[in-house]
Amino acid sequence: MSDTTINTEIYDANGYNCWLGYHLLENSPLKEEYSKWASNIVASQEDIGTALSELKRGFKEILGVNASVSSRGAEQSSYIALGVLGRGKEIDSYVKYDEVVKIGSEGYIIKSTKTNNGEEIVVAGTTIKGLLYGVFGLLRLLQTETVIEGILKIENPVNMLRIINHWDNIDGSIERGYAGKSIFFENNKITQDLGRIRDYARLLCSVGINSIVINNVNVHKYESMLITDRYLKDVAKLALIFGEYGIKLYLSVNFASTIEIGGLTTADPLDAEVSKWWEEKAEEIYSVIPDFGGFLIKADSEFRPGPFTYGRTHADGANMLAEALEPYGGLVIWRCFVYNCMQDWRDLTTDRARAAYDNFMPLDGLFKDNVLLQIKNGPMDFQVREPVSPLFGGLQKTNQLLELQVTQEYTGQQKHLCYLVPMWKEILDFDTMAQGKDTSVKKIITGSVFNNKLGGMAAVTNIGSDLNWTGHQMAQSNTYGYARLCWNPDLSAEQITDEWVRMTYSNNEKVVSTVKEMLMGSWRTYENYTSPLGIGWMVNPNHHYGPNVDGYEYDKWGTYHRADHKGIGVDRTVRNGTGYAGQYHKDVAEIYENLEKCPEELLLFFHHVPYDYRLKSGETLLQYIYNTHFKGAVEVEELISKWKSLKGLVGEEIFRHVLERLEGQLEHSKEWRDVINTYFYRKTGIPDEAGRKIY
Amino acid sequence: MSDTTINTEIYDANGYNCWLGYHLLENSPLKEEYSKWASNIVASQEDIGTALSELKRGFKEILGVNASVSSRGAEQSSYIALGVLGRGKEIDSYVKYDEVVKIGSEGYIIKSTKTNNGEEIVVAGTTIKGLLYGVFGLLRLLQTETVIEGILKIENPVNMLRIINHWDNIDGSIERGYAGKSIFFENNKITQDLGRIRDYARLLCSVGINSIVINNVNVHKYESMLITDRYLKDVAKLALIFGEYGIKLYLSVNFASTIEIGGLTTADPLDAEVSKWWEEKAEEIYSVIPDFGGFLIKADSEFRPGPFTYGRTHADGANMLAEALEPYGGLVIWRCFVYNCMQDWRDLTTDRARAAYDNFMPLDGLFKDNVLLQIKNGPMDFQVREPVSPLFGGLQKTNQLLELQVTQEYTGQQKHLCYLVPMWKEILDFDTMAQGKDTSVKKIITGSVFNNKLGGMAAVTNIGSDLNWTGHQMAQSNTYGYARLCWNPDLSAEQITDEWVRMTYSNNEKVVSTVKEMLMGSWRTYENYTSPLGIGWMVNPNHHYGPNVDGYEYDKWGTYHRADHKGIGVDRTVRNGTGYAGQYHKDVAEIYENLEKCPEELLLFFHHVPYDYRLKSGETLLQYIYNTHFKGAVEVEELISKWKSLKGLVGEEIFRHVLERLEGQLEHSKEWRDVINTYFYRKTGIPDEAGRKIY
Repeated sequence: MSDTTINTEIYDANGYNCWLGYHLLENSPLKEEYSKWASNIVASQEDIGTALSELKRGFKEILGVNASVSSRGAEQSSYIALGVLGRGKEIDSYVKYDEVVKIGSEGYIIKSTKTNNGEEIVVAGTTIKGLLYGVFGLLRLLQTETVIEGILKIENPVNMLRIINHWDNIDGSIERGYAGKSIFFENNKITQDLGRIRDYARLLCSVGINSIVINNVNVHKYESMLITDRYLKDVAKLALIFGEYGIKLYLSVNFASTIEIGGLTTADPLDAEVSKWWEEKAEEIYSVIPDFGGFLIKADSEFRPGPFTYGRTHADGANMLAEALEPYGGLVIWRCFVYNCMQDWRDLTTDRARAAYDNFMPLDGLFKDNVLLQIKNGPMDFQVREPVSPLFGGLQKTNQLLELQVTQEYTGQQKHLCYLVPMWKEILDFDTMAQGKDTSVKKIITGSVFNNKLGGMAAVTNIGSDLNWTGHQMAQSNTYGYARLCWNPDLSAEQITDEWVRMTYSNNEKVVSTVKEMLMGSWRTYENYTSPLGIGWMVNPNHHYGPNVDGYEYDKWGTYHRADHKGIGVDRTVRNGTGYAGQYHKDVAEIYENLEKCPEELLLFFHHVPYDYRLKSGETLLQYIYNTHFKGAVEVEELISKWKSLKGLVGEEIFRHVLERLEGQLEHSKEWRDVINTYFYRKTGIPDEAGRKIY
Repeated sequence: MSDTTINTEIYDANGYNCWLGYHLLENSPLKEEYSKWASNIVASQEDIGTALSELKRGFKEILGVNASVSSRGAEQSSYIALGVLGRGKEIDSYVKYDEVVKIGSEGYIIKSTKTNNGEEIVVAGTTIKGLLYGVFGLLRLLQTETVIEGILKIENPVNMLRIINHWDNIDGSIERGYAGKSIFFENNKITQDLGRIRDYARLLCSVGINSIVINNVNVHKYESMLITDRYLKDVAKLALIFGEYGIKLYLSVNFASTIEIGGLTTADPLDAEVSKWWEEKAEEIYSVIPDFGGFLIKADSEFRPGPFTYGRTHADGANMLAEALEPYGGLVIWRCFVYNCMQDWRDLTTDRARAAYDNFMPLDGLFKDNVLLQIKNGPMDFQVREPVSPLFGGLQKTNQLLELQVTQEYTGQQKHLCYLVPMWKEILDFDTMAQGKDTSVKKIITGSVFNNKLGGMAAVTNIGSDLNWTGHQMAQSNTYGYARLCWNPDLSAEQITDEWVRMTYSNNEKVVSTVKEMLMGSWRTYENYTSPLGIGWMVNPNHHYGPNVDGYEYDKWGTYHRADHKGIGVDRTVRNGTGYAGQYHKDVAEIYENLEKCPEELLLFFHHVPYDYRLKSGETLLQYIYNTHFKGAVEVEELISKWKSLKGLVGEEIFRHVLERLEGQLEHSKEWRDVINTYFYRKTGIPDEAGRKIY
């Protein structure tokens, strides 16, 4: 809870504590079992204060227990022991060697052992960070009413880097933010409300996030100065708080910093003065923030400066920065979102979908070891449905990060319920076939497939200053789900959802099953009433909210649907189209290339298809569009009745808030339905077979 | 020239002086004749300093003559006498009684009389303002190389109110401004650059403008305070300068001022406290600005407050303010731009075009004598082509102002050349048939048709802080033309254009004929490549620049084209449509109602027409759309070659600047052409008969 909190009840009622809202277990049969050992905490190590206080807070709020803390466990009947392995027998004697070797630097063990007098629960890591994850892992078990007796649980995060990207501007605005203002910045200053930052850090730590980039990838005038003494000391204060929760702080930097703030006349990465400037800058930064994570860079993209200006490559640019950071263990994260944003819509040969691959494949193997390429999940820009970027499976000799978008820029902007975990699962599970069957994206980004040194996931956050952090309170589930998938992409969407509902709302089975149903179907529902079959866009330009079929059709952004009165879709085949399909491994390419084999949900992404084409369901393409759009709006009505059935079972304020959002979503889903259906009806003159109202 | 001017050459080269750029008559045969009498000015009246100094400046710059000034003419051979009538024989003895009675309070006489020694030219008014107009009138004759010998010219402005509306915000921005920032405001302050204001005042005076509203009709927080002591003294400084040039200053006010700045809880016009507050406010304003013009109000429109909130009518609202201003001779100008801006596009019965008439006709006769209704020329919003508002000819017992838009919001935003005088001529000449044949708009607004006490014209200006005032230097012609039509709506477009070209560029016949051709055809050219046949809109939402056929089609603004694969247009007939056509006098309504009789340029405004409908030319509707769009772009090419033929005949900087704008216009006209043609081709599948490229 924030230092500046006045009324904690209002915070609780609005979901400020998210999945750490710790409901008291009142009627649970497990309460007694938990309370037995939870009443006595054994913790002798001096530097584990954060883990200990989190544990005590959890026990207090979940079990109503004020645990006593002692340094030795022997005299207790049942107790829980907390610590870092390798520091003494209170912990070490209960963990076996073959267990210890399985615990990585961020991993933890939760182990139950019967003792003479009762039961000992050990929670331990090989580092303080691992221990912290263990504590939150244990609390999650309690929150979800899991049986602990006899437990032996060893967990390690699957991904090395688990990153949150903020697109926060220093004036306090957030690019693509739908939950208020920045929690970091206000009026060109860094916030002094460090209580809220601490609350945020523990939320992120509780789900295993270990890296945060606090400012927008579009680095403007004042943001460029974040790495100067104007701001650096205040950045260090944030870094300290995040560090306490095992999270490294990164900054987005301006590639042209040498010019903007350095007084040089060039940003040429091969210029000796430029690299010297960055070396000195790195030294300065690390002298103030010793555990600084590194730089995130958007270069030569959407009018941002970059190495192209000097006839240099992205590798030249990234490596120059990487050399500056290398002595301190810092990383350079370089975004692959590079494309021609001044395209002529009349030009049918240029294809934005091709751009990332065309730009970066030739550079594979040329990047330094402490550089990672951050690759958006799809080739376009976070649409409700896209194929996976062919850079995954394409790049082999380069560290890779998968970039997702938690903030719902194109998926309802947190006014609509759209739970993205099922989409992310499909992306992570996508088989690139790069090394034969089962070369999934989730494997590639761990680095294990191609022996890359670094890897992981990053996502643009949906967090802002709203009391519930995410605008739509249910959108907290996307933050939670993203982090859990970073930790372990093999977790099923169902399991993650189950955890989140139980931790956030209640273990009441009706609540659990109803909310799970609502969340799990919501992405598909959103897709149903918006743009069909992978074609994307069809939104209002700039703000990207609401339907506008031709909104981007005659624009310069490379985002077209090419609908005429006979058909719709972009031919991206090698045979007749832009050739994009050929960027995939041949086994995948062959599927996308072929109209009959292409997954139908991506049909219009890869093919220009006549409206009378028959889908596998037997519907014509046009009738499918009509049907899904009518269906989508009906599904939102169902969401509302599901939610209404939970009245009295979830907090009153949350109930009211979510209902209000759902009702807005219903209105807007009808607007989508009617605009899309009318557009196609007017274009084709073909009526709906079921005779429903089209305008 | 502004007080802060450093380099007058740069000002001259960029057209800062507009039509008062006074080119030295070098090779003119008239120079000698002019110089004879222009060398001696007789001016004995004390308070005519502004007129005198303008005259001297003009003679100096046009003739190269430093005129000597004396108080008596008798001893001169030839001379010019300057003054207000009725103050002494130097003037009075040369003007006959039957001439004097023809000169109104703003009129003037220019009269040549042979004397014993040579020639006397009298320039006189019955007021100082009239005299000023006379001086600028005389200079115009010199600038355009008109023979003065034997002249007897009596001029009176036809319209009583000749108003410029600024949509300037106090932060310095201009709503729909395309020529830089406000010249009045900066950072919530009133400018201190009074030199520029003076330059502006004389420009306006030189073409007879007598009223100016300095702030935007959308009155926000700080603008609401313009009538408080925070700003009033600075407003008074502006009013003083304008007053010197015969221009009254008005302010747009917030209808809810009593709440915003008055500390009351209501703005109900029938509340005694509210009217008292306004009475006191009027007293305060007039104590600081004795010749204050009055208030302009946009109420109950596009989210602005108004009397509807209190269940009162526009008449209640306007009359309450009018009573407050009445003791001081102040006026209330009340805008009729009232419509439902939250329309559902699916609703086919509501029609924005009907709104002004529906709202204001029931109030005819209910407004006080010092209230005027300001009516936009068309029922929508300054589109490139609209029918004339049916309020003209409808309203009979109400003072009326015609509102035009000089700033090119929907007509190319001063990036495109679009000379609007021919359009305004059509509007002014439009025959409402309200009192039988020849009840034209221009007659109605003078008040003469229905014996209204007040009337005139108002226009949203295109003026900003750019060195050339209007962004596109040639757009100065629209300001000039608007003012000249205010003065005399019977002037032909050709004559106005002729004057402007000669005064601005040169009397060289090639320049005159070429630029006239360019200007006169440019409106039709713009119409050709943009939205066809009166349908309007088809622009990008919000900023209104560039093509977007469906940009407003599914929006809430009431601006639809209803195109499907068979036809396009809005049925506004009484028989089958929204009934809008029935708002006109029956003789006009009958024409619009009938598909065959409806003027083709308004066809799609009144009718939904199939693409294969044959126009009078024999073209199908669709082929007409294709043809005009190809033609429009070709015409822009012709504009360029015409302009290029003037190289060396106009100033180098102006030549370069206009050429650059024209080249941008050409690119953008092709974009328009291709988007519109592609849209219809994709919708219909019917190719261009001439086989030209459509995408």
